[in-house]
Amino acid sequence: MNKQVRLAARPDGLPKDTDWSFDASPVPEPGPGQVLVRISHVSLDPAMRAWMNEGATYIDDVKVGDVMRAGAVGRVVRSNAPDLAEGDAVRGVLGVQEYAVAGANELDRLDTTLAPIERYLGVLGWPGMTAYFGLLEIGKPNEGDSVVVSGAAGAVGSITGQIAKIKGCHVVGIAGGTEKCSYLVDELGFDGAIDYKTENIRNRLSELCPRGVDVFFDNVGGEILDAVLSRIAMKARVVISGAISQYNSARFRGPNNYMALLTQRARMEGFVVFDYARDYPHAAEQIVQWIAEGKIKAKEHVVKGIESFPSAFLRLFSGEKLGKLILEV
Amino acid sequence: MNKQVRLAARPDGLPKDTDWSFDASPVPEPGPGQVLVRISHVSLDPAMRAWMNEGATYIDDVKVGDVMRAGAVGRVVRSNAPDLAEGDAVRGVLGVQEYAVAGANELDRLDTTLAPIERYLGVLGWPGMTAYFGLLEIGKPNEGDSVVVSGAAGAVGSITGQIAKIKGCHVVGIAGGTEKCSYLVDELGFDGAIDYKTENIRNRLSELCPRGVDVFFDNVGGEILDAVLSRIAMKARVVISGAISQYNSARFRGPNNYMALLTQRARMEGFVVFDYARDYPHAAEQIVQWIAEGKIKAKEHVVKGIESFPSAFLRLFSGEKLGKLILEV
Repeated sequence: MNKQVRLAARPDGLPKDTDWSFDASPVPEPGPGQVLVRISHVSLDPAMRAWMNEGATYIDDVKVGDVMRAGAVGRVVRSNAPDLAEGDAVRGVLGVQEYAVAGANELDRLDTTLAPIERYLGVLGWPGMTAYFGLLEIGKPNEGDSVVVSGAAGAVGSITGQIAKIKGCHVVGIAGGTEKCSYLVDELGFDGAIDYKTENIRNRLSELCPRGVDVFFDNVGGEILDAVLSRIAMKARVVISGAISQYNSARFRGPNNYMALLTQRARMEGFVVFDYARDYPHAAEQIVQWIAEGKIKAKEHVVKGIESFPSAFLRLFSGEKLGKLILEV
Repeated sequence: MNKQVRLAARPDGLPKDTDWSFDASPVPEPGPGQVLVRISHVSLDPAMRAWMNEGATYIDDVKVGDVMRAGAVGRVVRSNAPDLAEGDAVRGVLGVQEYAVAGANELDRLDTTLAPIERYLGVLGWPGMTAYFGLLEIGKPNEGDSVVVSGAAGAVGSITGQIAKIKGCHVVGIAGGTEKCSYLVDELGFDGAIDYKTENIRNRLSELCPRGVDVFFDNVGGEILDAVLSRIAMKARVVISGAISQYNSARFRGPNNYMALLTQRARMEGFVVFDYARDYPHAAEQIVQWIAEGKIKAKEHVVKGIESFPSAFLRLFSGEKLGKLILEV
C-alpha cells in the first residue's frame, strides 16, 4: 500500500493537523514512458503554504482531496521508460506520499556519488537554485556591495549569504534567535547578523551597513521588509524571493516604506526559480565545486516519518529548524 | 516690497490655510554672479506636500519659517551675471514669492518664442520631464505594450499617456470623474479611461487590457496601485512616479499586492527626475516637436494671485483641476 497525505481543508491562517488527512491506496502501476518511484525524502517549503490557498499563483492551487504537492526524491523501483533504470535516483514534484508514478520527462536523474540524495532537495535543489539565480540574476551584486538577507538561517537564505560572500560582498543576515545568528557569523562566515526577535533592525543596519544596503534578498516580508527599505542605498536592488511572515496572515501586508524605491532610485523585483530550470545543472555543478572548496556549507534538518508531516511542516513558520527542512519517508 | 508665502506649521494630514503665513519683506539685492527675478508663475506640484513634512526625502524638508519651496518662472529685472540680461525669461526653484535672487547657475534660460513662459512649468518643465524620463527610461515600453497611467488627467499623467501613444502602445488612463475620462479619450487619444470614483478598476482593466498590464506608471499609490498590481502581465514594469493618494495620510500605505511582482516576474522601480537634468534640453526639444506635430496636447490650469496659494495648492488633492496647476503671481 501507498501511504499518502491529502489536503483535507483550506487552512485559515496557520494550518492545523486536521487540514490534512492520511490515506492509504494501492501502489500505482506505471504506464508507458512512466516509472514508479519509492520516495525517500520530501521537501518542506514555504511556498507549499501558498499552494494550499484557493486560486492559482504562479502554479495551480492544490485541490481539497488531492495529495499534498511537494518536491521529493527517491529511487525508481519499476520502469517503463528507456532512460531510467530500476535503482536510479530521481527528483520531481512527487507529493507527500510513499510511492509516485511519473513520466521520465518530469524527473531529474540525480548523481548520488556527488552528494547524498536528500541534498538534492536543499542546496542542490529548489532552495539552492533560488539563492543562486535570485541573487546573481536579480540582485546582481557587485564586489564590495552590502548584501542583506532575511530568513538568513533558512534553506535559501543561508546559501544566498554564502554566495554573496564568494562574490566579495559585505553580508549581513537577519534571523530569529542567538543560536541562528551565531551560526551565520561563526560557521557560515557572514560579516554580521541581526536577531530580529531582540534587536532593532533599523539601528543595527545603520551600524552594520553604514553606506546603506545595496542588495536586499527578502524571504520574509512584513516589518522586516519595511525596516530594510528604510536603509537601502541609492540604486539598490530588492529581490522578492518570498514573504514567509505573511503566508498565514488573513491580511497580506505590503511594504509601507515602498516610496524608498523613489527617493533611492531603487528597484524591487520578483522571480520564480522554475524559469531557470534549463540552467539548474550548471548552477548545481558550480555549487558542488564551492562545497568541495569549503566555500559553502549546507545543513539539512531531517524529520522522520510521513506521519510527522503536519508538525514538521509547521517548523517552517515557527522557525524551529536550521537550514533545509526535509521529511524522511 | 516682496510678498512671500512661508511655511508656518507642519501640516497634520491635508494642509490648512494656517499652515502658511503671508509676509512682505524688502525686495532683495542680487550679489555678484546673481540676478533678481520678478516671478510671473509658480508651479504647484504634489511633491511640495512631502517637502512640508519633517525630515529629508530626496531633498531637504522646508523648515518652518522658510519661504515655501516651489519651482517658478519669471523675468530677470536686475543682473550681476554676465550670461543673463534684464528681460531674460528664466526658471528655477525660486519659491512662492514675487521676487527672488538666484545665481545664474541655478537658473535655466527659457526660449519664449517656442512656448509661453508658463508652459516651462508644465509639459516643458518637471511634469513633462517626469513623464518623458520615467516612461522611457524606467518603464521602457515596447510597441504594442499595454500601458496604464494613474492620475492620468494630471500634469504628469496626461503627458505620459500621450508619449506612450507616440511609442505605439495601447494606453489606458485612470482618473476621477467622467469629464476627465472623456478628455483622455476624446481629446488626448487614449485608448481607454477608467473612472476610479465610479468604476471597478480590476474589472475594467480585465476588459481594457485582457493580456495584462505591461507598464504601469503610478502617480497615485494606495488602492489604485493594488488594483493594477493584480492585473500586471509577465515581466511588467511598475514605475513609481508618485503617491498622491497617500501624501496627506498619517499612515502611508504600501502595496499589499506586491507579491504579484514575484508571480509575474515583474519589477517596481522609482526615480527622481532631477537625475536627468543634463538631458532636459534634448527631451524638451523632442516634446516641442511633438506639440508642433499635434501629437501632444498640454493644458495648464492657472489660478491667479499669490493670496490664492493655499486654496490653489489643495486642488492637487481634491482633483479640481485638469492638466498642470499653476499660480500666476
